[in-house]
Amino acid sequence: MDVQIRQLRARLAEINDLRKAAAVLNWDMQTYMPAAGAESRAEQVSTLGKTAHQWFVADEIGQLLEELEARSGDLDYDSLEASLVRVTRREYDRARKLPTALVADLAQATSLGHSLWQQARARSDFARFEPQLEKIVDLALQKAEALGYDENPYDALLDEFEPGMKTAQVAALFEEMRAGLVPLVEAISDRVAAVDGSLFDQGFDRDKQWEFGIEVLTALGFDFDRGRQDIAAHPFTTSFSTNDVRLTTRVYPHQFKTAIFGSIHESGHGMYNQGFDPTLNRTLLSSGASLGVHESQSRLWENIVGRSRGFWIHWLPRLKHYFPIQLDGISVEHFYRAINRVHPSFIRVEADEVTYNLHIFLRFEIENLMIQGQVKIADLPELWNDRMEEYLGIRPADAAQGVLQDVHWSHGLIGYFPTYALGNLLSVQLYNLAVADRPEIPASIKAGEYSPLLDWMRDHIHVHGRKYTPVELIERETGGPIRTGPFLEYIQTKYSEIYDL
Amino acid sequence: MDVQIRQLRARLAEINDLRKAAAVLNWDMQTYMPAAGAESRAEQVSTLGKTAHQWFVADEIGQLLEELEARSGDLDYDSLEASLVRVTRREYDRARKLPTALVADLAQATSLGHSLWQQARARSDFARFEPQLEKIVDLALQKAEALGYDENPYDALLDEFEPGMKTAQVAALFEEMRAGLVPLVEAISDRVAAVDGSLFDQGFDRDKQWEFGIEVLTALGFDFDRGRQDIAAHPFTTSFSTNDVRLTTRVYPHQFKTAIFGSIHESGHGMYNQGFDPTLNRTLLSSGASLGVHESQSRLWENIVGRSRGFWIHWLPRLKHYFPIQLDGISVEHFYRAINRVHPSFIRVEADEVTYNLHIFLRFEIENLMIQGQVKIADLPELWNDRMEEYLGIRPADAAQGVLQDVHWSHGLIGYFPTYALGNLLSVQLYNLAVADRPEIPASIKAGEYSPLLDWMRDHIHVHGRKYTPVELIERETGGPIRTGPFLEYIQTKYSEIYDL
Repeated sequence: MDVQIRQLRARLAEINDLRKAAAVLNWDMQTYMPAAGAESRAEQVSTLGKTAHQWFVADEIGQLLEELEARSGDLDYDSLEASLVRVTRREYDRARKLPTALVADLAQATSLGHSLWQQARARSDFARFEPQLEKIVDLALQKAEALGYDENPYDALLDEFEPGMKTAQVAALFEEMRAGLVPLVEAISDRVAAVDGSLFDQGFDRDKQWEFGIEVLTALGFDFDRGRQDIAAHPFTTSFSTNDVRLTTRVYPHQFKTAIFGSIHESGHGMYNQGFDPTLNRTLLSSGASLGVHESQSRLWENIVGRSRGFWIHWLPRLKHYFPIQLDGISVEHFYRAINRVHPSFIRVEADEVTYNLHIFLRFEIENLMIQGQVKIADLPELWNDRMEEYLGIRPADAAQGVLQDVHWSHGLIGYFPTYALGNLLSVQLYNLAVADRPEIPASIKAGEYSPLLDWMRDHIHVHGRKYTPVELIERETGGPIRTGPFLEYIQTKYSEIYDL
Repeated sequence: MDVQIRQLRARLAEINDLRKAAAVLNWDMQTYMPAAGAESRAEQVSTLGKTAHQWFVADEIGQLLEELEARSGDLDYDSLEASLVRVTRREYDRARKLPTALVADLAQATSLGHSLWQQARARSDFARFEPQLEKIVDLALQKAEALGYDENPYDALLDEFEPGMKTAQVAALFEEMRAGLVPLVEAISDRVAAVDGSLFDQGFDRDKQWEFGIEVLTALGFDFDRGRQDIAAHPFTTSFSTNDVRLTTRVYPHQFKTAIFGSIHESGHGMYNQGFDPTLNRTLLSSGASLGVHESQSRLWENIVGRSRGFWIHWLPRLKHYFPIQLDGISVEHFYRAINRVHPSFIRVEADEVTYNLHIFLRFEIENLMIQGQVKIADLPELWNDRMEEYLGIRPADAAQGVLQDVHWSHGLIGYFPTYALGNLLSVQLYNLAVADRPEIPASIKAGEYSPLLDWMRDHIHVHGRKYTPVELIERETGGPIRTGPFLEYIQTKYSEIYDL
């Protein structure tokens, strides 16, 4: 057993190295690479992706898994060995279904696609991205067909990001969320005057915003000795090991909320990545359980912590040190309400907690139509704008504010968006559990102390890495499945108070 | 023929992708990576290096080369096809001699070695680097033995950086140089008062130094749309394609000359890398002919252009715009003499043109002793300091100023240093040729116009990439071999005038 485990780990370690190398190349592409480097970079990423795939689907790995499975009956389900075999088997079977040529095509199409998307977004010119997106959607559909599915090709894509989750389940959860959120949005729309957000119409120096963000992230517990933050057009987090985690953010003088809440959000991903058990290193287990679970961590820190009254009781005085003029005479109560102002807006990542999920519902529906071939790619900008008008009552003026705003499709990430809303649900479920275990958490947040909450997440979520499926992990921790109730209760309580409903 | 050329190019393209991926990882390691990431990064670089090596030494490439060689008799020697076969054969035969395990060991030892060297240098603590350096030297010796040599194991190492050059030839050239330089250094030492360098004892704002550097590099012809400059502890240039070339520099408030001349130096490498014929892309030909030829380009721009009177006739007024107080009342003549002040100093990369080569002679001798096992690694700091005292009359106070100053050995680059002095020789030979062809060059430099010189280098040197050996290239251009005469004449003329000898 030991011999095969060692052999399996040795193979997985080298595959991990190639994948992490590709991650470094992607990080560089989105942070520092000159635009002219895109074509060569696409080739490099494609070669790495193709090779990692070839190595992973090798018969040798299948044989090792078979030998290990035959003798793993008496292993503890929770042991590293049993988990390694179980998770590697799941990913192996999935990967074996994907032809190597398709994997290479996807890597190349999306690397180039990212560059074209950047250009298209900068010029708000969807036509520049359209042919490449068409190619990417076609490749995604080929991928779904290769992976197989019972009812819906979208199931096959969703499963990559949220193992075990089905399109129909997502649709049902989203229906419950919608039923709770739409009346709330309507009630708030009659009370818009209750919150004054005009303090953010002022300019805030970029360097000072950056410094304040670093100070906050350090206090939260993101370890800058094992990571860093850089600037990227579309913020993301990636990691090359638990000791090298890269956050990115963007900072605009006239959009104060963008940098700080974006940075806190990414640091939630980053702290998760820094918290995997180091013994899982260089295996498939050294990553998040799923994107939904990942997002539960980022949204926890961004919203439940970062947009709470207690958080700003501690941080507003410090922020006034950076911006004494802009924040002169602003009370915590005023600031708290301003950062939580609910108003329909075009850009998902800047949406408030209440309307955020409506952005996700829209993308989930459009992706389903794309994958089922029920909408032409050329018609996407129009469809997007129509749905925005239907859900949020506003219509984007151009494609940059609409269909081009998100990086995901350029990377071939279709089936990814729903995980953001699932993360919102989970963030509240997990936070409630942490507080039940450690009732001092709300008071500690007020005091600028985050280790009670972070430690709980480390012990209950982070340390496990990818050992458990999201369903297993949620069941282990909550005793049940993912639910909409806690999230809806959290959001209704918070916003009823703010808007005096 | 076409089929095999296509097959060979396809294989080389993927190998190139892995090597370039490793280059991105190395660039990141030296610019942005948190120190804690070093161990994982070493593993990643090792896996990429090992894999690229395995792919390159595959029998398939040997077979393709044989088939192509059998039918290449009627090909033009200068054609891409003939050159590709010729150069790939040379590198293939060399690589086949290296066991894969040794290549992996070297990659891992040097990736970790770089990190240990950084720590040792920061603390001026040679002991922290010593065991790893011992390992690296041992691996270099194993490499020399695997490659084979007639007389001297050092020949085998030197050949990687300067194909065709022998240790004995280097020693003879260095002897000629020494014979010319030592009397010059002595004559200058009697005339130190002739040059006042005290203007550089002032502080110069880092951001302004950076901006000025970018302005100069842009004017020289480094294309920032196809490259960038970042900060690194030990500046270097790397490229991921002709469209993505990365310079690095370091900027200190109290060492004005470090940033500007370092940046110009690296831009010389960078312009060479941007100038390879694009049709050579993703082959072994898309790189410099040798390190000596590479260094001829960097030293050309740094010294012959950047430390010339004509250069500062154009740039001093502009520099005064950035530093009006520090440069108040400073004439071009004063500035020109100050930047060319000759004085023995500890750090090679900051040495003046006259003493620079003495630093190289010292390293060449020490490397020979190391490789022949005639010095213990533990004794290197002492040996280094003794030789410094002998050559330059000064003794480093600590290892950071002495044996730890250069990054090269941590990367396993033994046999590399001589190429710096060879580059100095070549830079003058090539510049003289360019001026003979285009007599307007000196005047154009005075006017801040560099395209006559850059275009000549593009057409005569850059475009060829690695198609020709250094010997072939120098023979093609100069009609003879590398020579010390032009360099010694240049340096004697320039410094006799400055020091009124």
